[in-house]
Amino acid sequence: MHQFKGIYAPIATPFNGDSIDWPGLKKNLDFYNQSKLAGLVVLGSNGEFALLNRKEKLELIAFVREHLSKDKKMIAGTGCETTQEVIDLSNECADLGADAALIVNPWYYKGSYNDAVLANHFTKIANQVKMPIMLYNMPRNTSISMSANLIAQLAQHPNIVGVKDSGGDIVQITNIIRLTPANFSVFAGSGSFLYPTLAMGGVGGTLAIANILPDFCADLAAAAQAGQHEKAVSMQKKIMELNAAVTSKYGIPGLKKAMDLIGLVGGTPREPLLPVDEGKTADIKRLLAEFDL
Amino acid sequence: MHQFKGIYAPIATPFNGDSIDWPGLKKNLDFYNQSKLAGLVVLGSNGEFALLNRKEKLELIAFVREHLSKDKKMIAGTGCETTQEVIDLSNECADLGADAALIVNPWYYKGSYNDAVLANHFTKIANQVKMPIMLYNMPRNTSISMSANLIAQLAQHPNIVGVKDSGGDIVQITNIIRLTPANFSVFAGSGSFLYPTLAMGGVGGTLAIANILPDFCADLAAAAQAGQHEKAVSMQKKIMELNAAVTSKYGIPGLKKAMDLIGLVGGTPREPLLPVDEGKTADIKRLLAEFDL
Amino acid sequence: MHQFKGIYAPIATPFNGDSIDWPGLKKNLDFYNQSKLAGLVVLGSNGEFALLNRKEKLELIAFVREHLSKDKKMIAGTGCETTQEVIDLSNECADLGADAALIVNPWYYKGSYNDAVLANHFTKIANQVKMPIMLYNMPRNTSISMSANLIAQLAQHPNIVGVKDSGGDIVQITNIIRLTPANFSVFAGSGSFLYPTLAMGGVGGTLAIANILPDFCADLAAAAQAGQHEKAVSMQKKIMELNAAVTSKYGIPGLKKAMDLIGLVGGTPREPLLPVDEGKTADIKRLLAEFDL
Amino acid sequence: MHQFKGIYAPIATPFNGDSIDWPGLKKNLDFYNQSKLAGLVVLGSNGEFALLNRKEKLELIAFVREHLSKDKKMIAGTGCETTQEVIDLSNECADLGADAALIVNPWYYKGSYNDAVLANHFTKIANQVKMPIMLYNMPRNTSISMSANLIAQLAQHPNIVGVKDSGGDIVQITNIIRLTPANFSVFAGSGSFLYPTLAMGGVGGTLAIANILPDFCADLAAAAQAGQHEKAVSMQKKIMELNAAVTSKYGIPGLKKAMDLIGLVGGTPREPLLPVDEGKTADIKRLLAEFDL
Repeated sequence: MHQFKGIYAPIATPFNGDSIDWPGLKKNLDFYNQSKLAGLVVLGSNGEFALLNRKEKLELIAFVREHLSKDKKMIAGTGCETTQEVIDLSNECADLGADAALIVNPWYYKGSYNDAVLANHFTKIANQVKMPIMLYNMPRNTSISMSANLIAQLAQHPNIVGVKDSGGDIVQITNIIRLTPANFSVFAGSGSFLYPTLAMGGVGGTLAIANILPDFCADLAAAAQAGQHEKAVSMQKKIMELNAAVTSKYGIPGLKKAMDLIGLVGGTPREPLLPVDEGKTADIKRLLAEFDL
Repeated sequence: MHQFKGIYAPIATPFNGDSIDWPGLKKNLDFYNQSKLAGLVVLGSNGEFALLNRKEKLELIAFVREHLSKDKKMIAGTGCETTQEVIDLSNECADLGADAALIVNPWYYKGSYNDAVLANHFTKIANQVKMPIMLYNMPRNTSISMSANLIAQLAQHPNIVGVKDSGGDIVQITNIIRLTPANFSVFAGSGSFLYPTLAMGGVGGTLAIANILPDFCADLAAAAQAGQHEKAVSMQKKIMELNAAVTSKYGIPGLKKAMDLIGLVGGTPREPLLPVDEGKTADIKRLLAEFDL
Repeated sequence: MHQFKGIYAPIATPFNGDSIDWPGLKKNLDFYNQSKLAGLVVLGSNGEFALLNRKEKLELIAFVREHLSKDKKMIAGTGCETTQEVIDLSNECADLGADAALIVNPWYYKGSYNDAVLANHFTKIANQVKMPIMLYNMPRNTSISMSANLIAQLAQHPNIVGVKDSGGDIVQITNIIRLTPANFSVFAGSGSFLYPTLAMGGVGGTLAIANILPDFCADLAAAAQAGQHEKAVSMQKKIMELNAAVTSKYGIPGLKKAMDLIGLVGGTPREPLLPVDEGKTADIKRLLAEFDL
Repeated sequence: MHQFKGIYAPIATPFNGDSIDWPGLKKNLDFYNQSKLAGLVVLGSNGEFALLNRKEKLELIAFVREHLSKDKKMIAGTGCETTQEVIDLSNECADLGADAALIVNPWYYKGSYNDAVLANHFTKIANQVKMPIMLYNMPRNTSISMSANLIAQLAQHPNIVGVKDSGGDIVQITNIIRLTPANFSVFAGSGSFLYPTLAMGGVGGTLAIANILPDFCADLAAAAQAGQHEKAVSMQKKIMELNAAVTSKYGIPGLKKAMDLIGLVGGTPREPLLPVDEGKTADIKRLLAEFDL
């Protein structure tokens, strides 16, 4: 019924100096291909999409499509500041094999981006993009939280099939689930509230921590959806601290360091982002050890 | 194992003009006595505690204790701005038969109320109050959100037995549950996130909406705790809109109007609060009709 | 033309243990009597009004009136959560010799305190209080900022003669000055934006730092009003850091410590507030030394 | 002494459909060439820089340089999300004749952009850009407010010559002025606090409203700097409401409409921004009439 469900990793973009580290990315993809992930998000916030140029974005989409198992879906993060740019980038990603576009609301002129403006923006996009669209609510980065009413209105569009909510307001998530069609896919945008989202009727998650614990996250979701609530709750509690370390606490630099520490390729973040220092690295190591990683 | 669990109504204080309407309150108590509620909170935020003087507070505690069934617990809201005032008021309420004190953090000098100050405040109180204490986190009114770490630290005190969290941040609630002892009672502070809190391991709720839908709320909690997740989720979705009307959307005036409309006695709020207007009243009527009230 | 102008100190309430230190307060008043201050605010935020009971409040008003020079005005801070309480306390303070009431908006049920509610609150108060009223906008403590439009509307009431703005938003202050009658007194609520407020047409200030630097503040204001802008700007820059230490940075405990250090009587703050530690004390000493205090 | 001072208009980018309207821009430049402006900012927030692609940005810089009087300075807004992009774009703009770069802090990964990260970002830029740099603090759009301490630290770099502060916190502006060298140029970023900034020692402004009232703004600044404080205050009060209409209230669409109404070429904003409706247009007309425009 739902076009998209399950756990997706919003993959990091490994750099070698200031260039994309293609062999490193290939190594990571090999790992994800062996995992229980439903798919990957390329060009998500964790992929440093805002720090990539257009050429790099298209190269990444093409490269991942080439090396990702055919049984995994690839969602492209195509949010940009202008309506037309989103349409064009999305359609190019579709041509390169993306299965859907994950589109964050525009963010710079936030004082002007009221519901009417955002409804016009996403409706035009949905009308002109030739693949399904998931909305992306990311207030921590955009300082805008799309309202449940706006999302419910947009969910009526046949080409808008879901939402990734990274705000984590469970009241808002509950309202989104309540107000959207049964086949609209509501995804948790962080591992910190994955189980509560699933318990309320969400069907998946796009989670930074799935970069390093893909199977753990997939198992957590499977437990929740199989009605094994106690198991799911226990797993949810277990990932709270490591999840914070690779998201709100240490950001993308924390995630990349964690990847390096477990044998994947995170590499340095692109400037202005700076790598984590030794103290944070030690903290991340401690947390990884709890998972025998 | 938990000293406190189940659904509590933080009862409204009915006024007749500017005086407490004792017969009206008696009528409400008769209704709650017949309900599935575990107990009542007197002098909660919904009870307009911040608008009551000390004499009124003690009269209310005594009156409710007299008319409340012996099988229901009575929790007294005893938060005040000074540490000593909290201690004194709490002990007087204990003498009048309160089973526990629900204590909101102080709020006026919020710039100075860091974790160390709040830890000192609550520890002194817990040392000197002769009944169990539940912490009360209410950022919407106090503009302070007590951190999970602070709550976990305070939960080590033998006299601090739980927390009512009205912030609704499910990540924070998850962390509180994760970091506190197994017998520490975590309560949802609003009907809007009751099920998610219970699903994560919370054991109760103190809910404005329990003033008008006590059995519905108790049934929802029972379903969640019996593992009837689908039923609980469905009930959770059903109360979202009415819950908003008697909390964030129309405040205490909305709650009191809803009570009046279903045959309880809400009465006017005390000034500066003003009653809801006709438009809001119509909206509340519409929402009550969904529950055949 | 303006009923109130010049610099007021919102005096601290010295405690000895948990009791008011009357001899200490007398000593402070002797100092202020010799100063260039226009008057004092008793029961202001810096006076820990929110931590005092009603009896203490009335005793403080009576005591200060008795010991304050007749050429100094005394303004009573009479903000309370309920409309009626404000009216009653204000009139009792008037009977005890207060020249005006400084009234902060109510703060606990902030979600319900919209402009209409606050307009009703202050209008009823202004109708029933038998002395002039200054509004008190203090968003740092109340998490509400009264809008320029609301203040302009209230300024039409003959009994509302001014506003103390502690928010420090110079755009809002400019709008308040622009939209209120020429004889409406706009006061800066902190030394950190005294000169900009006066430069825009404000006529006074009620400043924590005036507790320790009364003449410096009065001289700064005199310079600004005499058109000695360079001198005023230079003095404004000079107080920035010490001002922060006795307000936003270290709060009332910082102010009280500074008073102790210069030979006045600050004493301990009342709990939950805690005294500053040694590190902060050293910082305050360093800053006082810049003024040869 | 100051390399940059006086009033700059951050010019709008007129569109014809989705293309830049070059003849329209030429018409606007002719008007600004006849004005008392010190110069223009091209690619500022009001110029919809975030909605322009790289090619358009360079074309705009070249076009304005070609048609702007030689006695006016041209500052290029070159803020981008990555450090390298800022360096490259700035140097290309320098090659095209820009006199300085106005550089907003990066904004998407705001949780990671602490003072250390921003100091590294701006220092690398200042080391590698071959023209002077003004920092641009724009919290309304970036949800980050660079601290006075960070700005003071960066002001030590010989290539960082000033700051445009659009936050309008006069305490912060005072601290910036106090903590930076005497020849560091502090500019108001909005007409709503131009005079207070100048009164404290600021030396200029980059103001949306200077697009439509260039001489009025220049005269206000001249009055302030000539010590004609009463005149400056009166002018400051006069622009408050119109200034709000072309900034916080109606945004860039409001500014563009105002330009159209007075015979300049605003044109439509680029989507996702939408033009103002008739009600807002009528409001803008009313406000323009107060200036006989």
